[in-house]
Amino acid sequence: MTPIRSADELLPGQAFDLGRFVLTREEVLDFARRFDPQPFHLDDDAARGSIFGRLVASGVHTFAAAVGHLIRSGLVSQVNQGAGGAELTWAAALEPDTPVTMRVIVEEVRPMRSKPHLAVVKLRYRVAKAGDGTVVLDVLAPHFMKR
Amino acid sequence: MTPIRSADELLPGQAFDLGRFVLTREEVLDFARRFDPQPFHLDDDAARGSIFGRLVASGVHTFAAAVGHLIRSGLVSQVNQGAGGAELTWAAALEPDTPVTMRVIVEEVRPMRSKPHLAVVKLRYRVAKAGDGTVVLDVLAPHFMKR
Repeated sequence: MTPIRSADELLPGQAFDLGRFVLTREEVLDFARRFDPQPFHLDDDAARGSIFGRLVASGVHTFAAAVGHLIRSGLVSQVNQGAGGAELTWAAALEPDTPVTMRVIVEEVRPMRSKPHLAVVKLRYRVAKAGDGTVVLDVLAPHFMKR
Repeated sequence: MTPIRSADELLPGQAFDLGRFVLTREEVLDFARRFDPQPFHLDDDAARGSIFGRLVASGVHTFAAAVGHLIRSGLVSQVNQGAGGAELTWAAALEPDTPVTMRVIVEEVRPMRSKPHLAVVKLRYRVAKAGDGTVVLDVLAPHFMKR
């Protein structure tokens, strides 16, 4: 993806399609063992008895993978200086080995008064199942970006 | 930690100290390579030129480690059924090998109308440097818990 060179290139409403990624069963189990060892992320039988009804990826994993996908796309590699937080919504669960698409939408661009060479850029990331479009992760994050 | 057996045991204002954890330099680099490969999480020299001024852990890593610490504490192991989202704030950055403490506060307990055997429990997790108390992560997350 062509990297943007300044936050000033971004306009609210702009959207970037970042293509697909997939969390394999092995990755889902490995992440859950390290960071979210709950039965419905680790064990098919236990997951059947959970509110999910089947083994699903940790939402923390979906979020981490989405951040990784954004960073690897290169879109913000020349400008991004971090983020102050993130509002996450896991509207639906994601099964392993299920391809998802990711779209990033610019919600707001606001130059910082205290640091005029930076802007706060609110980005929404939406991750949805490639098959039926079910949104599995919605993130709204205020990024600090160079101008 | 003694596991709670029902969301009904929880009251707004209750707090649980979950003790300490630390993200080692090796873990910080490993997580960043996989999920947040930005220069200020990977390279000391590049990090010196960033707004952080030194190499810091990915906020996604801090969040994942906090979730792992909560789950491993056992506190909600018998009742937790997942979470619908999370509001994250990274108020300060965290250097590798810096011990942090974690506290979980019950903000709200609301039985679900549609599923009376479950409640939505809003938990705040606060992760702070053990040395000087600087808060590095604040999370507010609506968990689904058995009653």
